[in-house]
Amino acid sequence: MNTIIEQSFSVPFKYPVCFSEDIFSIENKLFVDLLAKDRHAKVLFVVDKGVNEAHPHLIAQLNAYAEAHSDSFSIPCDPIVVVGGEASKNDESIYKKVVEATHLYGIDRHSYIAVIGGGAVIDMVGFAAAISHRGIRLIRIPTTVLSQNDSAVGVKNSVNLFGKKNYLGTFTPPYAVLNDFNFLKTLDDRDWRSGISEAIKVALIKDLSFFTWIEAHSAALAKREMKPMQELIIRCAQMHLDHISGKDPFEFGSSRPLDFGHWAAHKLEHLTDFRVRHGEAVAIGIALDSTYSHLKGWISEADLLRIIAVFKTLGFQVFAPELGGESLIKGLQEFQEHLGGQLTIMLLKALGKGEEVHEMDHELIYQSVEMLKSFNQTENLVTN
Amino acid sequence: MNTIIEQSFSVPFKYPVCFSEDIFSIENKLFVDLLAKDRHAKVLFVVDKGVNEAHPHLIAQLNAYAEAHSDSFSIPCDPIVVVGGEASKNDESIYKKVVEATHLYGIDRHSYIAVIGGGAVIDMVGFAAAISHRGIRLIRIPTTVLSQNDSAVGVKNSVNLFGKKNYLGTFTPPYAVLNDFNFLKTLDDRDWRSGISEAIKVALIKDLSFFTWIEAHSAALAKREMKPMQELIIRCAQMHLDHISGKDPFEFGSSRPLDFGHWAAHKLEHLTDFRVRHGEAVAIGIALDSTYSHLKGWISEADLLRIIAVFKTLGFQVFAPELGGESLIKGLQEFQEHLGGQLTIMLLKALGKGEEVHEMDHELIYQSVEMLKSFNQTENLVTN
Repeated sequence: MNTIIEQSFSVPFKYPVCFSEDIFSIENKLFVDLLAKDRHAKVLFVVDKGVNEAHPHLIAQLNAYAEAHSDSFSIPCDPIVVVGGEASKNDESIYKKVVEATHLYGIDRHSYIAVIGGGAVIDMVGFAAAISHRGIRLIRIPTTVLSQNDSAVGVKNSVNLFGKKNYLGTFTPPYAVLNDFNFLKTLDDRDWRSGISEAIKVALIKDLSFFTWIEAHSAALAKREMKPMQELIIRCAQMHLDHISGKDPFEFGSSRPLDFGHWAAHKLEHLTDFRVRHGEAVAIGIALDSTYSHLKGWISEADLLRIIAVFKTLGFQVFAPELGGESLIKGLQEFQEHLGGQLTIMLLKALGKGEEVHEMDHELIYQSVEMLKSFNQTENLVTN
Repeated sequence: MNTIIEQSFSVPFKYPVCFSEDIFSIENKLFVDLLAKDRHAKVLFVVDKGVNEAHPHLIAQLNAYAEAHSDSFSIPCDPIVVVGGEASKNDESIYKKVVEATHLYGIDRHSYIAVIGGGAVIDMVGFAAAISHRGIRLIRIPTTVLSQNDSAVGVKNSVNLFGKKNYLGTFTPPYAVLNDFNFLKTLDDRDWRSGISEAIKVALIKDLSFFTWIEAHSAALAKREMKPMQELIIRCAQMHLDHISGKDPFEFGSSRPLDFGHWAAHKLEHLTDFRVRHGEAVAIGIALDSTYSHLKGWISEADLLRIIAVFKTLGFQVFAPELGGESLIKGLQEFQEHLGGQLTIMLLKALGKGEEVHEMDHELIYQSVEMLKSFNQTENLVTN
């Protein structure tokens, strides 16, 4: 005598991911054209402190842009400048400051928050936007290679809690993503390089032709040539967008995010107390799991050396002293807890073809670490 | 030379809304059957203090149920008991306690939070569940008429902030909703009655036959007969579910929630410092906007009197002294701010047929209030 009603519906999401240059020069209409035309728009700007320092005229430029386009939108207060990097996600007072601004300046569900910064700041502001009024429209303007080709084009946001990364967050697609390549010019060499490892990641598990392209352009990328970097970012972003829309955007099921090389990377960031940056750790994590794939008999030595050579040409380290010892192995267990359920690790069946396994041989991991150490010391790798 | 990638995808949501009795008696398998079978489930229970007091054996029963079904699921800690009513949404330490429990007891995205309580507690726990690990599965077990037929079957959660109701929240469909009619037996008369006004609301704007049914059963409902109450709840819940799945579940566009009678209700709750409960305020708000619809020439006096008579038979007041004066009119403006954009008010074109307007005549509102005052004083209304 139970009654059961099955509720079911689908919610359509749609957002543009744009690539441009100098988006706040007055003649660039990309930003204003994104805003809905049904009423005069109100836009709250939040700016990463690091970006503001590297671009000292940015806020004046934003004000001038708003002034010039005052028929379309207005800014209710000066842009809010927040600390950059992981620190912005560790202290709850920072996201709460953004929430409070939505209250003070009447930013409602039909208004906008535009965030300019690196991936961490975008994660944090995205969380504040997602929970205020059950979701204020968010325009993401990522400023690093890593956020432009990877984190900022997706559907997640987050802050840290209990010493755990991304403990609080939601799946909330942005209103729009605006990649401005101009911001890349002021990145330091480490940040320029770091984001490339996520492109190598998707290439290795999904698309041999993209890997071959990166390999061919690795010297140019290392020299900070802008044209191949733009192509790399657009191609990598497209692959991420396809992955998200392809199957399970909000990760309800057991489908995995694109996390090749990430179990060791997460652990390494912690073991080095974040001396090694995320993209650098991912490079080492990829190198490790590629070496493991080779030792397992899945990819040839020649293929492994191609991977290592690309990283070295780009200027990455493929080893860190903290990889030695048993701490690394604990990372496997933590990765399992992080995802919930069964351990799932992506390895390489071939260049451009990932395959999942559900256990890893600890002895083979130790051997892989030893190989990485010697790769790191070798000046010239012989590749085919 | 801008490049634009249009990302688009749909996310399917599905959840059962179940109606049963005595769901934690050991032989009732509804709850265990809901849990996914791919692994042993972990369920964190949160219980409304008021429910716990009215059902002093509830927690022992939950423990016995978990013990009897330990092959399917386990509870990692004693149920967390939280203060009930709006207070649970006003103090951030309460939802944070739930978030902290997910951390302490390893409640991940494949675990569950089951919340037993009134609408406010379900809103608050829903918010904690939605933001922890980007969404822990939530099983809602509403215990009041109002939450069983209305708030808990939908897709929203929230807490209050800055003195504003529901300032923080998300649109996050539950994993399942389990309505146990047994909980209704211990409601006080005011709470039993309150929830009926939301059913009258949907009936008046959408379904004449449902209104006629409520009218025919109003005396039985007033006498707390369980059978018509169960029918009312199921029918009202079904209408809400249809409304949500019908068009714009996450309210991206300008489609309105089912908020007939709610602009005055929200204001009245505040003006009376919550002496008047939500459902009671909604009854008065509906009576007000129905009277306004009559004075505007949209519904006949006979139809208006039928509406007023139903409320009076059920034991509702259709007037409160705080309706007088100019404060009420301010509620119109606040309602507009709350929804964002243009003012939109639902009125009645006929019984069972709502129609939206975008302005209200203040003089006609004052006249409606005067009429309500006299209706409230009249013992016997002459209805057809």
